[in-house]
Amino acid sequence: MADKITSREKDYSEWYNDIVKQAGLAEHSAVKGCMVIKPYGYAIWEHMQAELDKKFKETGHVNAYFPLFVPKSFLSKEASHVEGFAKECAVVTHYRLKMSDDGKEVIVDPDAKLEEELIIRPTSETIIWNTYRNWIQSYRDLPLLINQWANVVRWEMRTRLFLRTTEFLWQEGHTAHATSEEALAETNQMLEVYAEFAEKFLAIPVIKGIKTANERFAGAVETYCIEAMMQDGKALQAGTSHFLGQNFAKAFDVKYLDKSNKAEFVWATSWGVSTRLVGALIMAHSDDEGLVLPPAVAPVQVVIVPIYRKPEELEAISEKIASLMKGLKAIGIRVKFDSDDNKKPGWKFAEHELKGVPLRIAIGPRDLENGTAEIAFRDTKAKQTITFDELINEIPKLLDQIQEGIYMKALRFREENSHYVDSWEDFKKVLDEKSGFIYAHWDGTSETETKIKEETKATIRCIPLDAKQEDGKCIYSGKPSTQRVIFARAY
Amino acid sequence: MADKITSREKDYSEWYNDIVKQAGLAEHSAVKGCMVIKPYGYAIWEHMQAELDKKFKETGHVNAYFPLFVPKSFLSKEASHVEGFAKECAVVTHYRLKMSDDGKEVIVDPDAKLEEELIIRPTSETIIWNTYRNWIQSYRDLPLLINQWANVVRWEMRTRLFLRTTEFLWQEGHTAHATSEEALAETNQMLEVYAEFAEKFLAIPVIKGIKTANERFAGAVETYCIEAMMQDGKALQAGTSHFLGQNFAKAFDVKYLDKSNKAEFVWATSWGVSTRLVGALIMAHSDDEGLVLPPAVAPVQVVIVPIYRKPEELEAISEKIASLMKGLKAIGIRVKFDSDDNKKPGWKFAEHELKGVPLRIAIGPRDLENGTAEIAFRDTKAKQTITFDELINEIPKLLDQIQEGIYMKALRFREENSHYVDSWEDFKKVLDEKSGFIYAHWDGTSETETKIKEETKATIRCIPLDAKQEDGKCIYSGKPSTQRVIFARAY
Repeated sequence: MADKITSREKDYSEWYNDIVKQAGLAEHSAVKGCMVIKPYGYAIWEHMQAELDKKFKETGHVNAYFPLFVPKSFLSKEASHVEGFAKECAVVTHYRLKMSDDGKEVIVDPDAKLEEELIIRPTSETIIWNTYRNWIQSYRDLPLLINQWANVVRWEMRTRLFLRTTEFLWQEGHTAHATSEEALAETNQMLEVYAEFAEKFLAIPVIKGIKTANERFAGAVETYCIEAMMQDGKALQAGTSHFLGQNFAKAFDVKYLDKSNKAEFVWATSWGVSTRLVGALIMAHSDDEGLVLPPAVAPVQVVIVPIYRKPEELEAISEKIASLMKGLKAIGIRVKFDSDDNKKPGWKFAEHELKGVPLRIAIGPRDLENGTAEIAFRDTKAKQTITFDELINEIPKLLDQIQEGIYMKALRFREENSHYVDSWEDFKKVLDEKSGFIYAHWDGTSETETKIKEETKATIRCIPLDAKQEDGKCIYSGKPSTQRVIFARAY
Repeated sequence: MADKITSREKDYSEWYNDIVKQAGLAEHSAVKGCMVIKPYGYAIWEHMQAELDKKFKETGHVNAYFPLFVPKSFLSKEASHVEGFAKECAVVTHYRLKMSDDGKEVIVDPDAKLEEELIIRPTSETIIWNTYRNWIQSYRDLPLLINQWANVVRWEMRTRLFLRTTEFLWQEGHTAHATSEEALAETNQMLEVYAEFAEKFLAIPVIKGIKTANERFAGAVETYCIEAMMQDGKALQAGTSHFLGQNFAKAFDVKYLDKSNKAEFVWATSWGVSTRLVGALIMAHSDDEGLVLPPAVAPVQVVIVPIYRKPEELEAISEKIASLMKGLKAIGIRVKFDSDDNKKPGWKFAEHELKGVPLRIAIGPRDLENGTAEIAFRDTKAKQTITFDELINEIPKLLDQIQEGIYMKALRFREENSHYVDSWEDFKKVLDEKSGFIYAHWDGTSETETKIKEETKATIRCIPLDAKQEDGKCIYSGKPSTQRVIFARAY
């Protein structure tokens, strides 16, 4: 049996660590800052990958693979990109090891020093745009719609499993277009893809918005994002879609001949989500008993636990559920029959609760007599008795209902923890006493944003796309403002 | 239109490079030794991945993810492993860059030197067994059946796209067992999985065998392999499955308590295949017109090319094939309608031939009148006219037939190029004049194997699992031998 999970109320941060550890999602590795994604955590990521990959392909993208290494000089080619990414990089300087002279240990061979150091990609714009230069000659080669599933490395001093690790897994889309309009349309399309994925698949409500200059991707003209609220009221950036303008095309000299045979720089986008989403999933829905997984992303959606004393009872239950299992699998439902004879039902109940299995079905000898089963909902902890023959039709509906319920609960939570604030005093008070998202007026300057961050640790999460225009005064400077932005402390 | 492909007869090596380049599979990157896998090449790899992943899961394995970095000291822990892998590694020595004092370039920050250097994984036994130590306490934790999809780096001086690159993509299975027998059974099971995948999915006949000590994986007790013959008669190792004994368990102190509560070292296997298989696929089947892809792995299995002059003819053809397209997609066939108005049919025919699309269907106005279509087979270049209404039923059968035909052709080729040789003179003569696999007696010593390699560049590809026992004399030393082994020059 797993150890007790720290309650959210007692220590939210410990609660998160306990869930990640006890549900078997990930752990720290021997290499500082890097994590091992354990099988159950990886299975969740695989379901996310499959769904995203399908959506990318439906919107016309194809996958490819670019090198892990970026020549050091590439990073310098785009001025603001190097500012943002050249700092925290893993640097390869040598390509060989050898035995020490005393034969006791392996040492770096000083003769195998690289002429130019290689950086482990923190993101792949530079290596990809250096490649695109040869792939794009004419308007006929555009648009180029490519995605990559890969690992990236950003050296982090303070790490948290899934949320911030030195190495992480992600996908990065890199597209090239003939016009600014097309590139902007792509940026928006992928923001929509991410938002729909977060809301429908992960059951996490998100706010679509634009980042301020301070929070913009290094090298982007505009960064679009989806922002989610965690259960401690903090914000988590769940995905970004960047309009890169012609910045990388100019840095890597990527031009195309348009229909009138004129050479023009290409327009670009990039967009990505990462294993950080597993962290978001945990923090958005789970409770003090363990993970709560929306059915769409759950590795096991339905678990059937037999309740029995004698082997012949187990056998009768196994026979009874065989066709149900087959029927559920045939319609694509991930169902598991937990017939492990070494564990008691109580242990199994707690285990499946910990692992966030959305629907549990218990069947005992009395159920067999009555033609019933007991179903238990992970999210609401409700239980009900149901006619066995109804299960095959009811389960898909119940799973949809659970998916929707988890989303609605998170949405309600976000609404309850969103605050409209009009003074600096209130701002600080709400931030400290209530946490959550604060909708407030801001004068539009980086200076004010920086000062607010220094004084409160709150940042502007985004300028919401659907923000209504209204006259107001900046909560900090008192200068005029035309719309509210969202402030929050963030992961 | 693509450039002309060098013929196999003229220059096999150039032929291979031409196919990889012109079919858009991969290209060299700006980083020496690393390749860019282009969308069409990556699509082939994705189909391989999907099929292998399904087979791994059917045999009880789960996926996980371990760090890219291996602490340098880990490599030294298993004595023979370090011999094999410590040489050609990418070494990370620093974790930060900074602007140079003159502000002109980015340099490695000397203050950010790592205490212990990190190696980019050339394979993950060490980091994984260091992790398994904490995952395994009792026999109840065994077997542990884990696979990882990852990138690995082995510094290579001479590289060839797909076949040998500094960075490549692969899967690596790492399993832990309570007994030697179980670990051996796993090693064999995965060898069978690989062999079936190569033969049924890639249509490449393979020989299952055991590697000699010289060719064994560094750290393994026994290395099992599948060996394939390329069209130039050279061998290509297409997959390996290693029985690791207790070597890594001892190196990383991984013990379990058995049922009698006694601590025992754990038994291990590891097994992998890589993007090298894309190279094998090309070299096994393709011809002087381009790629030849077995339908199972082809990104596009059927292409329909409309033959028309007037827009209304294209429209009529589009209408005619709509339900066929829908019907084929419904049964899982990857079909494309190439209605690109900017390209002529002749161009399209050559393009789809180059890309190895197994089945091409051409439909023109006369076909519409007659209710027929012309089908063309990529592998045999045969053409035939078929009743349009038969297509929906015939296509799946034809694809199966093509798959089988490609396999049989490769099998015949291998048989024609396998030679039984009993003298050293004949050995050298056959190797130079005929190439292919040579079945010959060998005295079982590494010394003889090394000498033969030095003199002829031929290595022992494997000791075939189904080799019949027969008395003979080593072709080189004349010493007694009980079975033939397979010699060949290899990729």
